[in-house]
Amino acid sequence: MASKLFKASWQDLAKATKRISKTYAVPKGFKVSGTIVGVKPSNSTKADLAFIASETPCSAAAVYTKTKFRAAPITFTRKLLESHSTNIRGVIINSGNANAVTGPGGLADAAAMSQAADQVLGAANSTLVMSTGVIGQRLPIKKILDGVPAAHEALGDTTSHWLECATAICTTDTFPKLEAKTFTLPSSPSIEYRIAGMTKGAGMICPNMATLLSMIATDAPIAAPALQAALRAATVKSFNSISIDNDMSTNDIVAVLANGAAGGSEVTEVKGADFEAFKTVLTELATDLAKLIVRDGEGATKFITIRVTNALSEAGARQVAATVAQSSLFKTAMYGKDANWGRIVASAGSAFVRPGQVQVDDAPDLNPDTTNVSIIPSDGSPELKLLVNGVPEVVDETRAAEILEQEDIEIVISLGTGSHEAVHWTCDMSHEYVTINGDYRT
Amino acid sequence: MASKLFKASWQDLAKATKRISKTYAVPKGFKVSGTIVGVKPSNSTKADLAFIASETPCSAAAVYTKTKFRAAPITFTRKLLESHSTNIRGVIINSGNANAVTGPGGLADAAAMSQAADQVLGAANSTLVMSTGVIGQRLPIKKILDGVPAAHEALGDTTSHWLECATAICTTDTFPKLEAKTFTLPSSPSIEYRIAGMTKGAGMICPNMATLLSMIATDAPIAAPALQAALRAATVKSFNSISIDNDMSTNDIVAVLANGAAGGSEVTEVKGADFEAFKTVLTELATDLAKLIVRDGEGATKFITIRVTNALSEAGARQVAATVAQSSLFKTAMYGKDANWGRIVASAGSAFVRPGQVQVDDAPDLNPDTTNVSIIPSDGSPELKLLVNGVPEVVDETRAAEILEQEDIEIVISLGTGSHEAVHWTCDMSHEYVTINGDYRT
Repeated sequence: MASKLFKASWQDLAKATKRISKTYAVPKGFKVSGTIVGVKPSNSTKADLAFIASETPCSAAAVYTKTKFRAAPITFTRKLLESHSTNIRGVIINSGNANAVTGPGGLADAAAMSQAADQVLGAANSTLVMSTGVIGQRLPIKKILDGVPAAHEALGDTTSHWLECATAICTTDTFPKLEAKTFTLPSSPSIEYRIAGMTKGAGMICPNMATLLSMIATDAPIAAPALQAALRAATVKSFNSISIDNDMSTNDIVAVLANGAAGGSEVTEVKGADFEAFKTVLTELATDLAKLIVRDGEGATKFITIRVTNALSEAGARQVAATVAQSSLFKTAMYGKDANWGRIVASAGSAFVRPGQVQVDDAPDLNPDTTNVSIIPSDGSPELKLLVNGVPEVVDETRAAEILEQEDIEIVISLGTGSHEAVHWTCDMSHEYVTINGDYRT
Repeated sequence: MASKLFKASWQDLAKATKRISKTYAVPKGFKVSGTIVGVKPSNSTKADLAFIASETPCSAAAVYTKTKFRAAPITFTRKLLESHSTNIRGVIINSGNANAVTGPGGLADAAAMSQAADQVLGAANSTLVMSTGVIGQRLPIKKILDGVPAAHEALGDTTSHWLECATAICTTDTFPKLEAKTFTLPSSPSIEYRIAGMTKGAGMICPNMATLLSMIATDAPIAAPALQAALRAATVKSFNSISIDNDMSTNDIVAVLANGAAGGSEVTEVKGADFEAFKTVLTELATDLAKLIVRDGEGATKFITIRVTNALSEAGARQVAATVAQSSLFKTAMYGKDANWGRIVASAGSAFVRPGQVQVDDAPDLNPDTTNVSIIPSDGSPELKLLVNGVPEVVDETRAAEILEQEDIEIVISLGTGSHEAVHWTCDMSHEYVTINGDYRT
């Protein structure tokens, strides 16, 4: 399990490099850095400023937290991309302080970060801003602004640079999260494109982008509207299909930059073979990144896949999967290695209940009499059936306990009302989760 | 704190009696018992069969879990009350096994429990059924049916009988939950009416009635339609305004029986002074019972009141209060005595986000610029302001820590968008919560 591998060696870049060296591919024309400016108050030996810069202007796209109380960097970046989603040159990110609920001063701080980065890049209105960390405290903005030239100096395009950058966006994460892929587009089969992404998470992760930052870069030539459409589609099946707890952050954002440095003809349409190919690789990369967040869930000891099949609708399947994945009772049972499938069914049954709703007889995705629940062992051995067409199986508890000893657990819930499917990834809820969040600030 | 008082003396009825003797009032014409039939497998010294019987036929009303996967006793009781909500004579309740997801056999078991109770009462189709406990295992129905005559023999109307009955419906509860009140109705000012209720909870508590049983009895003459309307109104502000975790059970039910044994003219209309007076006392009783559940929340060390004021709508206020109350991050911060109000604001901001929704600009109850957050100390000292019109206060952390040391904590969130208010009660999330739910079955 990745988190185990990395927990002992938080900044052991050699090990991290080894893990991803098989697939690592630096997109051309991007340089990145991770440096220490001292935003993180209690541990100034951790990098806390990440800088991503493209040598040439990029198309850009982003998706944001849906909370009503957006942090200043979200407001700033969203406004910037609404004014123009081309000619973007970079992203500047601090960790340790979310610059959220900080009033007009916080918005000025976000703008100042962007301008400082623009200045060293020799550009204007071209740097996106992200922040993550504690809410409600003003940024130590002077430290950040003073650190931007050094962050610019430190830019580079090696694996180490990317890992340092990925490390600099972490908060309670126990390892940097970086993934990369190569791909081709049908119209230019001879060109090898590259896409790399980093993310951070650990806590406050919930569908709809909760305390999650991700920055993805590709050297493929993707026009902004196609980039935005591909990102929206990818997010549904990746970052919005994971949960750690059920909380949603003020600061969540996933941004993609495409600089076209690898050449080829630009993908301008939101359809066609090139668009579909790019959407597929972006979804794969985003899914890999999202799963890394779950692997590193605060206090997690299990990586749990909830697969809902045979649903009347994909949206319904997604809703059921997310509801089960967010059940504290289910998650504590998994921590306790308890095949308490009753909690799975109880949770699924409440998937469509809304405040003020009196009846749920209108939840057509659910039919108690056609519901099946199984555990799929990660070692390839046969599934263990827990519920068949609404009737409990006599479960071999010894076998169940063996399966639940494994770190990776897959629960399949077949609703028997249709043919649609969705997957949600989550982790268990442990004592450690409470410890981490009981004294996050102290 | 009640839970502390009772945790050391689970079945110390003398202490429990003392606690409630000031207000305890047995409704006339009801007899109750709590006996041991051995449904609870691992601890057969705990009472697990509760029996409530009226000497005369009652009007009855109930509200149920909204989950799609209802347990057999819910299906049975609902159908019984749909066929007739008068001529009800009693309620039979087992703990230790929820009789949920048990197929047609489970439904037959629920019917058999009702019939066995009917038989000893000399009635037919007149006994409601409730169950609580582990999901997905068939009831040891023979033990229950064999125990009904003894439960009937044990019926009585003393405080001890009511506490034994309240004890018999408990699962992970650490103390029996019983409350009672006396009241008058405007049309019969000389008659003292009585209302008593018991409930159980502890885990899987969420708005919309989650793993929560409650049985309330009154000797006032309330016709079934008025009883149902009063119960619905009372539930919104009581049992549906509490959270322990965010899970919803297959088995939740609150039922009210009114036998009219104290005399007076029947309240038949769903309006008027008598109806309003009864609705008020029922709401008060239900609120007291609901708060006892929070006091005894699994692993709880704090009793937290979330009061949302100055909202555009009551529904909006309720939604914000519930969302904050259900945030794992907020609840762990309270456990850690951390005035991390940022989590309160982050959670409130996401209150209206729905799956698949892209924008929340249509959440008119929320306005970041008019939001205020304060902690109200339970010792009567002045409030501690954390956020004023969207701008963080410089918080005296020493004072904050002092306040958060107290067991009772009230958070007031003023939205500044209107004049409506709602209250939600919750507890903190502790290591003990994880321990309890990590090995509930073992």
